[in-house]
Amino acid sequence: MQILQVDVGHSRYPITIGPALLGDRELLDSQIGGHDLLVVTNTTVAPLYLATLRATLTGRRIAECVLPDGEQHKTLQTAARVFDALVEARMNRDATVLALGGGVVGDIAGFAAACYQRGVGYVQIPTTLLAQVDSSVGGKTGVNHPGGKNLIGAFYQPLAVIADTDTLATLPDRELRAGLAEVIKYGCVWDPELFEWLELNLSKLRRRDPAALAHAIGRSCAIKAAVVASDEKELNVRAILNFGHTFGHAIESATHYETFLHGEAVGLGMLMATDLSHRLGLIDATTLERVQNLLKLAGLPTEVPRIGAARGFELMQMDKKVLAGTVRLVLLDKLGHAVVTGTYAQSALDATLSEYFA
Amino acid sequence: MQILQVDVGHSRYPITIGPALLGDRELLDSQIGGHDLLVVTNTTVAPLYLATLRATLTGRRIAECVLPDGEQHKTLQTAARVFDALVEARMNRDATVLALGGGVVGDIAGFAAACYQRGVGYVQIPTTLLAQVDSSVGGKTGVNHPGGKNLIGAFYQPLAVIADTDTLATLPDRELRAGLAEVIKYGCVWDPELFEWLELNLSKLRRRDPAALAHAIGRSCAIKAAVVASDEKELNVRAILNFGHTFGHAIESATHYETFLHGEAVGLGMLMATDLSHRLGLIDATTLERVQNLLKLAGLPTEVPRIGAARGFELMQMDKKVLAGTVRLVLLDKLGHAVVTGTYAQSALDATLSEYFA
Repeated sequence: MQILQVDVGHSRYPITIGPALLGDRELLDSQIGGHDLLVVTNTTVAPLYLATLRATLTGRRIAECVLPDGEQHKTLQTAARVFDALVEARMNRDATVLALGGGVVGDIAGFAAACYQRGVGYVQIPTTLLAQVDSSVGGKTGVNHPGGKNLIGAFYQPLAVIADTDTLATLPDRELRAGLAEVIKYGCVWDPELFEWLELNLSKLRRRDPAALAHAIGRSCAIKAAVVASDEKELNVRAILNFGHTFGHAIESATHYETFLHGEAVGLGMLMATDLSHRLGLIDATTLERVQNLLKLAGLPTEVPRIGAARGFELMQMDKKVLAGTVRLVLLDKLGHAVVTGTYAQSALDATLSEYFA
Repeated sequence: MQILQVDVGHSRYPITIGPALLGDRELLDSQIGGHDLLVVTNTTVAPLYLATLRATLTGRRIAECVLPDGEQHKTLQTAARVFDALVEARMNRDATVLALGGGVVGDIAGFAAACYQRGVGYVQIPTTLLAQVDSSVGGKTGVNHPGGKNLIGAFYQPLAVIADTDTLATLPDRELRAGLAEVIKYGCVWDPELFEWLELNLSKLRRRDPAALAHAIGRSCAIKAAVVASDEKELNVRAILNFGHTFGHAIESATHYETFLHGEAVGLGMLMATDLSHRLGLIDATTLERVQNLLKLAGLPTEVPRIGAARGFELMQMDKKVLAGTVRLVLLDKLGHAVVTGTYAQSALDATLSEYFA
């Protein structure tokens, strides 16, 4: 079992990573306070893990809210269902929301917890690789708006993150690969050693080797915790974790969140951001190829949908990283290091947009 | 012009109170930063003050969102209209929301600002007495749920509060009286001198004497600022500002927010809370009568709707101040001082509920 700490000043909480945590009564009792709980999950995860979680949480009052599965349901309307469940169960300010599921469940449940009675506690219990390495840590919560991804939300830190790696056993291969995209991201923007380790160990991760998964998850969470600790509200350095996301959000939005998993769209976005970094002369051809190869090795899609360069750029402009009309982008300036900038040759961006979107 | 400061540690902002502020370009330029603004207002206030505000705010990009008027529209659906307006105007993280109107507009606009892109700035420009003395200060934002008032929201402080007392000239008498309920509240729970001043000057306030209004608003804001500074998130002392509100919220909810203005319901709630304080032996008969007389002097309704004692108590239990099943109440233990307690004789509460609700 690995235990990491996230410390954002006003809030400090543990990330626990390991097998069989959903059945660990001592752990759950120590990290999930309070008597009244609402478990938010979805129709895919509920039949797999809800009974185990309930059996471990004895002596509590537990209500449930089972949402439909899928990024297309990450809406204000779905968040309203969580509010309804909280009200119906007569949950008060001392209630705790448990987010049992992937990134969508965690984002919606966290946002609902942030807003219900102006804020109740919540615990992330991520059951996908993507949620375990990324979305469950750091307190970004929210839902999508038809006009753009995560446009409605809150920075709101959980009380704890409990990542039971056994839950990855039931994860579809496609979702496992989507999660690997975010692990690769940490290697690209922060940790060249992790990048090299991934080049050597990606096949182990795809075979779900427990030791390899534990290393990838632990290292990813440690990086995320360090970045979030120094910049909770994404005023500067945290923005590098959006590497590939501005392109990726445009792809998700253009395809109505139905064609690609979030991690897959981020993978495609990283291809484009790396291509642009190379066109701008920030990285050499070898680095470009290494990123491209690693994404291919992960089994991620490499064909960007032809949504049109103009439409793609328009959707990128609705991304939250746009400040006063300039699209700010996360670019690599070497392997394992990223910069955030609104100053780049538009012609280079146009070339990348044409290459992939047109 | 009076200028007060609210200091909640992580956020510090000015409250400016005075005449002709909406036309004061220097003031608005100094307190409303940024180029992109969304003015949120309602169908009643827009024809009165929107043009003046726009004329003073030169050189900005200004979008508008005009909401229907009334507490029954303080819903998540109405907040969604503000999100739509922000997206449609392509507002980014550097946008500022201006709340031009009463408490409902301020609560919805502040909540939308708290959630849009996980938080953009907002400025409160209150145009009702209730909003100027209470709701615009302190960062409580939110909307109602069919199950209870303000169940969905955020603690989110404005960048500034600009209270133009000239806007009170167009305020209907009924709304003026409703605002006086909150002024009386400050006297009851915090400031015996204010209470005595009100006993002598209520007729001046009802005649809209500018000096009297300026005194009442300034004193109310000063009390609110002091209380919020010591307890932003209502973990302890701030709860006393809910005096009359637990009863009042039950009344509003039972009458579907259609029969009473918020201040009127609070006035009725203060009658009940004072009655209970007296039944519990916390205050003497003279104090009870003085509160009753002051509410009558303000021209507030004194007939509590007969919603049924059991139904009323049920609705009170959905109030946010309920902790682990106990209805916590704000009670007076002398004139100008309140206590928050969950420990009281249920028989006394039952007697008050029967007296007013049955």
